[in-house]
Amino acid sequence: MRYLARPEAELTLPLVNRAVEAAFSEHGHGLVQMPPKLYVTIGTGDFRTMPAYLPSAGIAGVKVVNVHPDNPLIGLPTVMALLIILDVRTGTPLAILNATALTDLRTGAAGAVATKYLCPEKSIDLGMVGAGRQAVALARAISVEKEIRTIKVSSRSLSSARRFCKSFPGIDCRVVSPEDACDTDVLVTATPSRVPLIRDEWIADGTHINAMGADAPGKEELDPALLSRARVFVDDLKQAVHSGEMNVPVASGLYHPDRVAGTIGEVVNGLLGRLKREEITIFDSTGLAIQDLAVAALALKQKGGIELQFP
Amino acid sequence: MRYLARPEAELTLPLVNRAVEAAFSEHGHGLVQMPPKLYVTIGTGDFRTMPAYLPSAGIAGVKVVNVHPDNPLIGLPTVMALLIILDVRTGTPLAILNATALTDLRTGAAGAVATKYLCPEKSIDLGMVGAGRQAVALARAISVEKEIRTIKVSSRSLSSARRFCKSFPGIDCRVVSPEDACDTDVLVTATPSRVPLIRDEWIADGTHINAMGADAPGKEELDPALLSRARVFVDDLKQAVHSGEMNVPVASGLYHPDRVAGTIGEVVNGLLGRLKREEITIFDSTGLAIQDLAVAALALKQKGGIELQFP
Repeated sequence: MRYLARPEAELTLPLVNRAVEAAFSEHGHGLVQMPPKLYVTIGTGDFRTMPAYLPSAGIAGVKVVNVHPDNPLIGLPTVMALLIILDVRTGTPLAILNATALTDLRTGAAGAVATKYLCPEKSIDLGMVGAGRQAVALARAISVEKEIRTIKVSSRSLSSARRFCKSFPGIDCRVVSPEDACDTDVLVTATPSRVPLIRDEWIADGTHINAMGADAPGKEELDPALLSRARVFVDDLKQAVHSGEMNVPVASGLYHPDRVAGTIGEVVNGLLGRLKREEITIFDSTGLAIQDLAVAALALKQKGGIELQFP
Repeated sequence: MRYLARPEAELTLPLVNRAVEAAFSEHGHGLVQMPPKLYVTIGTGDFRTMPAYLPSAGIAGVKVVNVHPDNPLIGLPTVMALLIILDVRTGTPLAILNATALTDLRTGAAGAVATKYLCPEKSIDLGMVGAGRQAVALARAISVEKEIRTIKVSSRSLSSARRFCKSFPGIDCRVVSPEDACDTDVLVTATPSRVPLIRDEWIADGTHINAMGADAPGKEELDPALLSRARVFVDDLKQAVHSGEMNVPVASGLYHPDRVAGTIGEVVNGLLGRLKREEITIFDSTGLAIQDLAVAALALKQKGGIELQFP
């Protein structure tokens, strides 16, 4: 059994995007095992336990990841993750990965894959609401799939928004209001908000939205009216109803899961997609354990790491 | 973050039993967080993911443990486990433990605590059906709580039964038939059986049974008639219905969970117990994540281990 402190070291964004795309496809075909993630609250946050088996990549394991938004106040990351990988025949632990950076990569890839399939333009103006680590990862991953003309970024913190733009020196990046960030071809929301930030009337027909931030009960970023106006795709329906963008509107009766068009896996598999240029599409992403395993399978091709005595 | 390859090194059985007893008590008071364990099948077995938070011990984390009964054919253990421990305030990973031996210890302690409270005799004849690692751990842990006059052990494998007896050189230990193993004060079943091994008519009034083996859907060791005849205590009702001794009889309608007397935590807390000398008591044990955390909290008092770079 080995420990990898920097499993992301040799990964490239195109490889990561394709690995996550393949995992979505397998999920769309119903070939993965992935019980809905479990939540345990500790301190002012929670940790999530995410087991899965992704047969095509020959990988199985469990991600353990916390979310503690107050951590930066004491110099710690909000999100930290470990991933345990098991031999798919015998259950023997093979590797433990520091999965914090892998989590950013696989989250970015999810938004990128959804954008590839659901946004019809090759060249886009990209709107970002939220400017943290995941926002940077999302814009980077999307830049692999689309030519980005401009980024309009909005954040509660002006310094975060400016820092975000510095991560994209080759792109025209502007700090704007939330409303102006919505005046784009593709909108990405990546905040920890518990109230809708994006108003229905700000979104023009034809927009594609990656709703990435809501990943726990009580979190939401979009006006529920937007969900009803749009065609909504999920990564996994059970997780979306429990903790995705739709969790609050579903709980309050403003949205019904029967209205969901389908999964991103079905989109990747060509069974579903955008029907009309002018419709609004939303990808409600909760984050799947199979995304982590797909990226881990790439990372494990590299040699090295620290050998740990086991058993 | 540190890795402990031998976290069991400095533990003593009395300390382990008391830690598990305290965890059961806290569970009985409804003070722990512990979602039911998740199962993922890989190869010819499965792995289980067990997150929990045990506030009184100030510990939270996740155990990942496989069960692959064919592994010994290729020289690997049937069960291997890792435990990730997180800081309860910030979610920061603090330690990773090789939890294979800890799993034996906490399973033994569960049977020992149940025996302490539900068997009225101080000095007992102990019956064992199953003679593997967990059986040895159970008999050792029970020997802390009760004086053991004789052990009667039964196993499909004569060599396993003889090896078991060699683990107890100071005790009169005999290899017997399953029926003869039942002619004791306390019976422990610790097999991977999927058919009832223990017939109702073999069990005398007043016996206490620790039903330890059934820990996944489809597994059972006892004649369902025994459940109906006995007062049944569980470690956790949801887990017992899903994967404990009662899972098959409940699924087939031969037993109803409403008949369960209560949890071992309620027994430890003095709210429940044996009512009459002549009644049969059964402890249906599935194994709780909080047992692992309770023992890990003891193990983490020791220094040492390998420091791992994180994040």
